[in-house]
Amino acid sequence: MKEQMTPLEEIRHSSAHVLATAVLRLFPEAQLDIGPPTDTGFYYDFDLEHKFTAEDLEKIEAEMKKVIKENQKFIRVEVPRDEAIQMIKDFGQETYKLGRLDDIPEGDTISFYKNGEFLDLCAGTHVNYTKKIKAFKLLSVAGAYHRGDSSNKQLQRIYGTAFATKDELAAHLEMLEEAKKRDHRRIGKDMQLFTFDSEQVGPGLPLWMPKGTVLVDELEKLAKETEFAAGYDRVRTPHLAKESLYHTSGHLPYYEESMFPAMEFEEEAGGEKVRYFIKAMNCPHHHKIYAAVPRSYRDLPVRLSEYGTCYRYEQSGELMGLMRVRSMQMNDAHIYCTEEQFEEEFNAVNEMYLKYFKLFGFDKYLMRFSTHDPDQLGKKFVDNAELWKKTENMVRDVLKSSGINYVEVPNEAAFYGPKIDVQVWSAIGREFTIATNQVDFAVPARFGLEYTTSENTKETPLCIHRAPLGTHERFIGFLIEHFGGDFPTWLAPEQVRILPISDKVADYAKTLLSDLRASGVRATADLHNEKLGAKIRKAELDKVPNVLIVGPKEAEDGTVSVRSRFEGDRGTMSAEAFKEDLLETIRSRKLQVKE
Amino acid sequence: MKEQMTPLEEIRHSSAHVLATAVLRLFPEAQLDIGPPTDTGFYYDFDLEHKFTAEDLEKIEAEMKKVIKENQKFIRVEVPRDEAIQMIKDFGQETYKLGRLDDIPEGDTISFYKNGEFLDLCAGTHVNYTKKIKAFKLLSVAGAYHRGDSSNKQLQRIYGTAFATKDELAAHLEMLEEAKKRDHRRIGKDMQLFTFDSEQVGPGLPLWMPKGTVLVDELEKLAKETEFAAGYDRVRTPHLAKESLYHTSGHLPYYEESMFPAMEFEEEAGGEKVRYFIKAMNCPHHHKIYAAVPRSYRDLPVRLSEYGTCYRYEQSGELMGLMRVRSMQMNDAHIYCTEEQFEEEFNAVNEMYLKYFKLFGFDKYLMRFSTHDPDQLGKKFVDNAELWKKTENMVRDVLKSSGINYVEVPNEAAFYGPKIDVQVWSAIGREFTIATNQVDFAVPARFGLEYTTSENTKETPLCIHRAPLGTHERFIGFLIEHFGGDFPTWLAPEQVRILPISDKVADYAKTLLSDLRASGVRATADLHNEKLGAKIRKAELDKVPNVLIVGPKEAEDGTVSVRSRFEGDRGTMSAEAFKEDLLETIRSRKLQVKE
Repeated sequence: MKEQMTPLEEIRHSSAHVLATAVLRLFPEAQLDIGPPTDTGFYYDFDLEHKFTAEDLEKIEAEMKKVIKENQKFIRVEVPRDEAIQMIKDFGQETYKLGRLDDIPEGDTISFYKNGEFLDLCAGTHVNYTKKIKAFKLLSVAGAYHRGDSSNKQLQRIYGTAFATKDELAAHLEMLEEAKKRDHRRIGKDMQLFTFDSEQVGPGLPLWMPKGTVLVDELEKLAKETEFAAGYDRVRTPHLAKESLYHTSGHLPYYEESMFPAMEFEEEAGGEKVRYFIKAMNCPHHHKIYAAVPRSYRDLPVRLSEYGTCYRYEQSGELMGLMRVRSMQMNDAHIYCTEEQFEEEFNAVNEMYLKYFKLFGFDKYLMRFSTHDPDQLGKKFVDNAELWKKTENMVRDVLKSSGINYVEVPNEAAFYGPKIDVQVWSAIGREFTIATNQVDFAVPARFGLEYTTSENTKETPLCIHRAPLGTHERFIGFLIEHFGGDFPTWLAPEQVRILPISDKVADYAKTLLSDLRASGVRATADLHNEKLGAKIRKAELDKVPNVLIVGPKEAEDGTVSVRSRFEGDRGTMSAEAFKEDLLETIRSRKLQVKE
Repeated sequence: MKEQMTPLEEIRHSSAHVLATAVLRLFPEAQLDIGPPTDTGFYYDFDLEHKFTAEDLEKIEAEMKKVIKENQKFIRVEVPRDEAIQMIKDFGQETYKLGRLDDIPEGDTISFYKNGEFLDLCAGTHVNYTKKIKAFKLLSVAGAYHRGDSSNKQLQRIYGTAFATKDELAAHLEMLEEAKKRDHRRIGKDMQLFTFDSEQVGPGLPLWMPKGTVLVDELEKLAKETEFAAGYDRVRTPHLAKESLYHTSGHLPYYEESMFPAMEFEEEAGGEKVRYFIKAMNCPHHHKIYAAVPRSYRDLPVRLSEYGTCYRYEQSGELMGLMRVRSMQMNDAHIYCTEEQFEEEFNAVNEMYLKYFKLFGFDKYLMRFSTHDPDQLGKKFVDNAELWKKTENMVRDVLKSSGINYVEVPNEAAFYGPKIDVQVWSAIGREFTIATNQVDFAVPARFGLEYTTSENTKETPLCIHRAPLGTHERFIGFLIEHFGGDFPTWLAPEQVRILPISDKVADYAKTLLSDLRASGVRATADLHNEKLGAKIRKAELDKVPNVLIVGPKEAEDGTVSVRSRFEGDRGTMSAEAFKEDLLETIRSRKLQVKE
């Protein structure tokens, strides 16, 4: 089956073929696996004893330019299976291509695309001529297991990108450069936000240093205030539970490989052994709190929220900075409500997202609404056609009527209900999935959750799982890139630094300091015996948003000379006026962005 | 050796003998183990097939009164070992008493005490005549293993108490009655503060319900504010670490039986197995954060604080409400300082304790300063005589000069330094150990912690472990008893409840409610269609500190009629004046005690 690609996908897909053409010219012994377009470019996987170097990439790029200049035509050929096998053998690419051919079901069309001397088993589609590739760039080489399976051979994947125009390519490459500068691992180390100790604490388990802990605490405070105003109740639950809890929830045995292994011990010396798990999610504990007291329709909705730390097992090779970790502190909550209350509750959750987006200046977002596939009921999805239809309609209605930016993706729902993945773009245009909402109409019944209706009957509540700030780890990783480490004052680890120009005004600096700290401001004073220029440079390196320079004149007048990281030199003002303005900036969580 | 007891101890010790005398008269087949005085009374352990009932206790008490009336003389007899064996046999008490005789080292004096027909192997001392026992009471029966070892037979322990006067006894019994009413397990259930789910979550792992979470959160907020003002930096660390961390800290292998068992898994599929432990203490993680960046003398003291949840293994039979649990959230911090800074830092820690005592109205406290025994150096205590002397002197100097109430207890220090256990008495006069401070001069070196001195040499910092609020679990358990569930407004889960006298003023109630909640007040409105009297009774049962009653008159005038749980009927005042006063009560964390 020929599936039509978009024009940009065709350019990228064709670039991958041109890449393979060039590689075979320079390294004829290479065995090819696959080379698809991606959201941001393309890649091709090669099996080759020689390890590609940076110089090789330059040579390959030069050869690709030749191929493009030759303006080869892309020609589609459809052939029967036996002929396809022969073509692959004749072209000397048996190692992976025969296996890829086997993947094509009997009866489906088998097609190749040819360009010049090159030939590839390929469903298409492509541009007409290689000259249509006007702007491409090879980016990097990385190892990639054949079919993504670590028991298979590791191949060499060459990544590249391509765009319709040179300007678009330049903009993308600039974004990648900027993303490198804003790499959260690098900024996290430079600003002493977090650290890892793989040797003794363990990989994927970040230790939050004082400055990073401020970020976590400020996010938690934001969530607490927002959720208090929205009628949530906070709870705290242990990080452990007995095996049996996860059998009731359905996480065991299916999810076991993503959980840390059990701790097995006797409740009493000599007693029977029991197995405890460290929690990988908070829902079962929250369900237990819901169930701890009788609930009436008059109590609903019940909204239980917690900053619960969960632990999930990932192979250490999969871990990446804060983006892929083993400990996850979630801005979690579960809303138990009636069907009648669902629309209002779900709408309020979305409003909370939008409020956060505005606060952090996320201008671009997308909600991916994943629904079920009726053919998969009882297999991939809970077998209750009516409830699927009803809840999906409810969700769709809310999304539509609130004018939220969303797309609908069939067949990607969770097992127990529809879900919404929230994607946001950072200030430099990179996309991240930061959170997931789920509607759960199956698990509350497994826990026997219920409420008494006004007719004195028993009903099972619906449950909305939501976590608008996702996990602290991932969210802060994203914020570091988004702000490039230049956090708005309310969020900044160090909000104010006072620089006395000499020892003579140290006392004035100390008075200012204790006044600001008494108001809860994270202020410091640099009293070291150094030149002012050096102190200013240090404050800049530390990305302190507000720097106060004070000399004898300021001490006499009770003023401060203010340098803002966001507004530049703000001149001299009274210490009191500065403080008032600062406190309002903090209180209102003013969005500040460094140009 | 005859050790002289205090007069009260003699009364209680003699009461135990009288108890055994009475039991043998009523149950001649009983075998006696031991019967000492305790801090609050006495007990005696009996081996008897018949299970003592409440009626038995009454009969035994009556028989004890007869024994007292007979005014038997307590007579001390010292005998050689062979004679002692014969005396025990003649009295028919071989089962346990012969073993107890074996405990007395060769060469030590062996003594018996006689009263009337009764005879007991006993070092003494006692009152002269049974009539000196003027005020006693039997309290309860409980199981107790012989020598406290669960592999031995379980005996029946009868508890009693005795005082010098009837008035003192009455006061104590009243305190016990009050303690029962204030039992944190009962109040915790009634007020829905916390719950346990032994079946699926696990015993000793409290789930904090919304109202209890408010208590935890308020304590955490208090600590955060107090520690910010005192120059602490907050950190967050994972709940797991590799085995190797605990070998470095010295917790493994010695402390392993108090820790949850290891989780063993491969970092990579097919890789070597590693063992992770869930943390039982926060110090090793904090040491890692100290070590993460180079430290200079100019950075010290470094004060790292965390509300870290630790997990310790206790046998399920040892668990008791919030007082003995398996999950402990600690108000933990570690202060790294030079020797010169020690006095100031340690003093500041003590000041923080005193500040908290005042805030919560703990009028009586005692710091138990535990020191080392020079004979045990290298065995029970780190082998560094000089450092022991120096740190103990430093601690003693601070305690003396600050006029803090303390006692010194030799030979009870921690392995790596002197410690201070903090004991407080609740409002009804019960004693609790709520926190421990430790001075650690050994472990920082094990972690290679250091700082650069002004002479550019390397030194190891001292470390003060401190947790003034102890663990949330135990501290809140104590506060529940201390306040009898009547928490001061700043701490109360529900601070204000608004009771409209009819539907007509529901809107006014809602306006008041949203105004209070917008100011961060935990307010609710009881809008149910019930009589005012019923609503008032419900608010009283729920121990809401401020109840606002509003009718048409109040709605018209913008006033509220205020009932305070602490001050009674406060009359009618403007809603604005009530709010201002309330916010100040909360902001200042005003101590309020229900009479």
